[in-house]
Amino acid sequence: MTTSTQNHAQNPTDPTQDQAPGSTAGPTPGRAATRSTTPTGPIPVPREGDPRLDVDAVTRALLGKWAETRLEARERAARPEMHRPLDASVAEHRDRVFGQLRTLAEEQVSLPMLPEHLGGPNDNGANVAGFEELVVADPSLQIKAGVQWGLFTSAIVQLGDEDQQRRWVPDAMSLEIPGAFAMTEIGHGSDVQSLGTTATFDPEGGDDGEWVIHTPFRAATKDYLGNAAVNARAATVFARLITRGVDHGVHCFYVPVRDEKGEMLPGVRSEDDGEKGGLNGIDNGRLAFDHVRVPRTNLLNRYGDVAADGTYSSPIESPGRRFFTMLGTLVQGRVSLDGSANRASQLALTIALTYASQRRQFTAASPTQETVLLDYQSHLARLLPKLAATYAGAFAHEQLLQAFDDVFSGRGDTPEGREDLETLAAALKPTSTRLALDTIQECREACGGQGFMAENQLVGLHQDLDVYATFEGDNTVLLQLVAKRLLADYTSELRSIDRAGIGRFIAQRADVLAHRHTPWGRLVQTASDAGNARRSSETLRQADVQEHLLAERARVKVEEVALALRAGARMAPADAAALVNKHQVEMLDAARAHADLVRWRAFTAGIESVEDEGSREVLTDVRDLFGLSLLQDDLAWYLLNGQLSAQRGRQVSADIKRLLWRLRPHALDLVDAFDVRPGHVRAPIALGAEQERQDEAAAFFRAQRASADAPVSEKALRAKEKAEKKARDKQAPKSARR
Amino acid sequence: MTTSTQNHAQNPTDPTQDQAPGSTAGPTPGRAATRSTTPTGPIPVPREGDPRLDVDAVTRALLGKWAETRLEARERAARPEMHRPLDASVAEHRDRVFGQLRTLAEEQVSLPMLPEHLGGPNDNGANVAGFEELVVADPSLQIKAGVQWGLFTSAIVQLGDEDQQRRWVPDAMSLEIPGAFAMTEIGHGSDVQSLGTTATFDPEGGDDGEWVIHTPFRAATKDYLGNAAVNARAATVFARLITRGVDHGVHCFYVPVRDEKGEMLPGVRSEDDGEKGGLNGIDNGRLAFDHVRVPRTNLLNRYGDVAADGTYSSPIESPGRRFFTMLGTLVQGRVSLDGSANRASQLALTIALTYASQRRQFTAASPTQETVLLDYQSHLARLLPKLAATYAGAFAHEQLLQAFDDVFSGRGDTPEGREDLETLAAALKPTSTRLALDTIQECREACGGQGFMAENQLVGLHQDLDVYATFEGDNTVLLQLVAKRLLADYTSELRSIDRAGIGRFIAQRADVLAHRHTPWGRLVQTASDAGNARRSSETLRQADVQEHLLAERARVKVEEVALALRAGARMAPADAAALVNKHQVEMLDAARAHADLVRWRAFTAGIESVEDEGSREVLTDVRDLFGLSLLQDDLAWYLLNGQLSAQRGRQVSADIKRLLWRLRPHALDLVDAFDVRPGHVRAPIALGAEQERQDEAAAFFRAQRASADAPVSEKALRAKEKAEKKARDKQAPKSARR
Repeated sequence: MTTSTQNHAQNPTDPTQDQAPGSTAGPTPGRAATRSTTPTGPIPVPREGDPRLDVDAVTRALLGKWAETRLEARERAARPEMHRPLDASVAEHRDRVFGQLRTLAEEQVSLPMLPEHLGGPNDNGANVAGFEELVVADPSLQIKAGVQWGLFTSAIVQLGDEDQQRRWVPDAMSLEIPGAFAMTEIGHGSDVQSLGTTATFDPEGGDDGEWVIHTPFRAATKDYLGNAAVNARAATVFARLITRGVDHGVHCFYVPVRDEKGEMLPGVRSEDDGEKGGLNGIDNGRLAFDHVRVPRTNLLNRYGDVAADGTYSSPIESPGRRFFTMLGTLVQGRVSLDGSANRASQLALTIALTYASQRRQFTAASPTQETVLLDYQSHLARLLPKLAATYAGAFAHEQLLQAFDDVFSGRGDTPEGREDLETLAAALKPTSTRLALDTIQECREACGGQGFMAENQLVGLHQDLDVYATFEGDNTVLLQLVAKRLLADYTSELRSIDRAGIGRFIAQRADVLAHRHTPWGRLVQTASDAGNARRSSETLRQADVQEHLLAERARVKVEEVALALRAGARMAPADAAALVNKHQVEMLDAARAHADLVRWRAFTAGIESVEDEGSREVLTDVRDLFGLSLLQDDLAWYLLNGQLSAQRGRQVSADIKRLLWRLRPHALDLVDAFDVRPGHVRAPIALGAEQERQDEAAAFFRAQRASADAPVSEKALRAKEKAEKKARDKQAPKSARR
Repeated sequence: MTTSTQNHAQNPTDPTQDQAPGSTAGPTPGRAATRSTTPTGPIPVPREGDPRLDVDAVTRALLGKWAETRLEARERAARPEMHRPLDASVAEHRDRVFGQLRTLAEEQVSLPMLPEHLGGPNDNGANVAGFEELVVADPSLQIKAGVQWGLFTSAIVQLGDEDQQRRWVPDAMSLEIPGAFAMTEIGHGSDVQSLGTTATFDPEGGDDGEWVIHTPFRAATKDYLGNAAVNARAATVFARLITRGVDHGVHCFYVPVRDEKGEMLPGVRSEDDGEKGGLNGIDNGRLAFDHVRVPRTNLLNRYGDVAADGTYSSPIESPGRRFFTMLGTLVQGRVSLDGSANRASQLALTIALTYASQRRQFTAASPTQETVLLDYQSHLARLLPKLAATYAGAFAHEQLLQAFDDVFSGRGDTPEGREDLETLAAALKPTSTRLALDTIQECREACGGQGFMAENQLVGLHQDLDVYATFEGDNTVLLQLVAKRLLADYTSELRSIDRAGIGRFIAQRADVLAHRHTPWGRLVQTASDAGNARRSSETLRQADVQEHLLAERARVKVEEVALALRAGARMAPADAAALVNKHQVEMLDAARAHADLVRWRAFTAGIESVEDEGSREVLTDVRDLFGLSLLQDDLAWYLLNGQLSAQRGRQVSADIKRLLWRLRPHALDLVDAFDVRPGHVRAPIALGAEQERQDEAAAFFRAQRASADAPVSEKALRAKEKAEKKARDKQAPKSARR
């Protein structure tokens, strides 16, 4: 084998490979990993003139619009005092995280979220970008900060008037008043509209009326609330507003829950959720209210208010639209989970790919040197498609964050802008959190026993990220929201056709769909592709072909559900619900297809933003791997719908294998571009421990081979004896052998 | 809706639903869950004469040959003192598990493993069956018991002679000597043959020679060993046997490591692995040896011995075969992981399906009652296929356990019998551990926030089972073993054809495969199926059709790899390795296809063993769901290989949806048959807490609806006003409206 160091696209003795945590300043200093310099196996050697990844250029592209904030936040996340502890008790971990939260408050990390009249720059994008980066320090810290500022404080900022903001926001920002965001109840998480807690107006109470906050039954207990078990002194409580005998639906109230000494206030009861699957640095708990009274002005009143006489008023007439407007503030949590889930995937991939490039096992290709894990096809196949999807997710997240910033800064705050933002967040949050869990688990298993050791971070990361799939909008429920929006869009498209036209249109589309189900279309494609594997492969790697295939899939899947559900319009509600339920799996599938298309397009647009030509070429391979993996995952659908011929269909997996091999030399560069620093990685197996052990063992065996009195293996001895016997037999006269 | 209680196939007020832990004796008392009695939604109501599952009959079938042992072990696993603690520190958890281990030793739980001459019944199947059941008490306990008796003691029994057995086995059995199984090293887990630890014979040492056990470099440190960090007083150490300058390969040595006070013996160093991703009740750690001397007779000498003069002898001439024979004892661990992974899936499904049948969210089908989660199509689709695969896994495991018992009892201990056993274990262990992790994760997410609470068991179960995927044979490495065996079988089939015939045969097969790649075969099938969806559906649900499709897939996938690899025989080793590597993903795929076929066949055979006709009918639906899900997961392959027409291909998902609906009324019966008892479940959400909350909330709203002074919703009020205005407008004279 003569591949030696050429297999890595970067100089393996790169002096910028600084391992000291926290010693980094620019966009790409402090690379996490030492590198194996002696790969084995049949890796294609990049030739002179082959594209190379400019790691700095790609890092810049990934950093996006809020690069400065992110770099600053990465420094912060690399500080040892910010890190997730190993083997801490729940109580110790909670104390540690609360201390970290105080540090964040002192450093005014969340200031960018405040509007100008509260002394902030109203830079919501920067605020979220900064918090996302905390996930690599400790997800508990990220989420606890999210509870305090992204939910509790944000509810006051978004739902209160200026008086209320000035009254409560400063103490919330400084952590003088730690707060809980008391929305979810034991009985209702996804269906917030059905919450059971009541806030009944009593015009006789207090100076000019009071709210009576009450938990009418056990299932209406607020649950899973960060800060509720220990730290919270107040809560933004979501409850049904009842005044003058009318239930005006769910509104938000500012309710003190503990005094300065941490004692529960009268009528408020707290329970500790105890140990959880992860995020144990957060004191999640329950809150229940027994006729707790707060002043009339504790109703956060931007979208609904009650006068001293109990008259209700709201700037939004429709109770439904009013409710969803108030809930709109929740989108911030989904945006930041999308970003932090992606960052967690980057961390996991950095650990697993670094280890895979140093860890050796089995001597397949050489008698004296074992093969590096990353040179095994199956290892590439389990990790690189996830790397590709993580790139797609990073670029898609940047688009989401910019959309969020537009709306929340007020620049793009139109009803359509909000709706688009909510749909995009609802599509991406489930996709990236799912990807993160799958990626972390795959990385953990790809590191074998080492992956199971807590010090190597992967298991803790999975435990903490686990709940990202079901909180801040359960993934299944969010995808259903996306599907409903897509169906509504499709239906309003239909509405633009006149009444008589609709029938014709439906018939036409049904005809098109039916044709798609016959193999004739495929046969034509097969004939034109016949015997030309190269052409069909080239075709699939063309961006416009991939986009067309992904866009068609997203469109047709929505169309099929829409046509199937049309009969529901004329049905009784129960029957209509049953019909929708019969197509629920397809609806979720259509939503995922939409998310795939969004990510693919964002990736493609992201590549355009990279200036370096070689990097664009490598990233295009990565994008192709992402696109082709999507095709492969749904290949049966493409074949059944006549959108891919059998020949092209077979080409997909062959092409993926080729891409894995082509990308092998760039794998470490691609994770380097994530700028995951040693202070983020912390896993010894990805910071040199494995390479050190490999080098020591290799030196031992080298010395042994050179030494005269090293033991000979019985196997070699037997082989030698056999050969000698054979030679003796040969020298003996032929006659003797007869 | 008039479905009411009829939706459950069993009487919902079944008085046998006893919730007290440990109060069970027969095969199916003590059902875990209280049941929702008021389902909603479009569930098909089972009509008079529809098949019902006889829960007891199915439980008996699942219990298999060692039913008595399992029932006794289930009683034991339900005892509170055996249970996994919540929120314990690593040290506390370790202490607790070691105490539990003492109890098991006192109760002589592992006695069945001993051969007659050591005072046992030589009932290896019973021994493993009993230990598997411990997983629902605490996986740490199961694995720590496995280390002590399944590995450490077993190594002495399997690899030592009778003298050695009598010397060490009694103390190992009684836990007088806790032991570590020191095989894996930091540098070598999967490739045991390349271990670095040496045992060099010194004929001058001691009375008649000594072994010098030595760790030559850091990577050769033994790692991940249960008992090594704290409890172990001895270890069975795998090291390269070196005598008279010859390295005879890896052998096993009995090496004391700590004295009675727990102090390390001279030259032995131990390190603690610290916190892990799970199984924290086990004190995993490292052992390193600095020229540690043990007597000559501490070599476990059944398959290799050294005389006092240093002469090596072995009953097995080939060093390779000798090594694999010694390693054969490892299969016991794989067998028991297969069984316990399956039992863990059963526990997770019991929790998630019980909760899903009580938890309600969103009022889609009724204005006053929310829909039970299990009535949503997507919820059925995420859980029932995993339930079906768990049934398949249970029946397949019973076959594996019987094969293991045959070989280890000596009845079927032939080289072929061992090889078949090892291949079967290598196929099933990766399949069931993968399924368990995926199932537990799906169940945890399907329970939303409740699923993330430690008290509901699912998160801890995932954390503990996580490492099952990579220890006792990494899943990827095991599947590769399976593929190699399948390829070898295929090649020896080829060998039975004469030399000239081989060429013809290859050409023929290549031709067959090529034809399979054209769509012509499919077209014929399409034509005969045309317009007859029912017929193609019926066909796919025929057992012989499913078996044929799964068997063909398993065969063709091996054949394709075998043909692709034939060129390797004439290549240099490095090139041949590269060729194999190019097909590694296909090899793993072929191994999985083989495991699928094995499981499908075991399931089908298992159904035959159930006497009750109705149960067989329901289980056949479950088997069909399993079979069709396998087809769906690899549908693109079937379409591309012309084994399914597009029409039949489309039928697969339609048929799966119908099966989900058909099985909905039987879902709880199907988990009931697992006989997972309240003392195993322990999750409050599956033991009545959720149902209690639902009932209380429902009663509150019923009372509210009946009361005169309940608040009216603003929405209802607005709708009423609108209707009244409309009525007024209608009554006004037409002229007034102009």
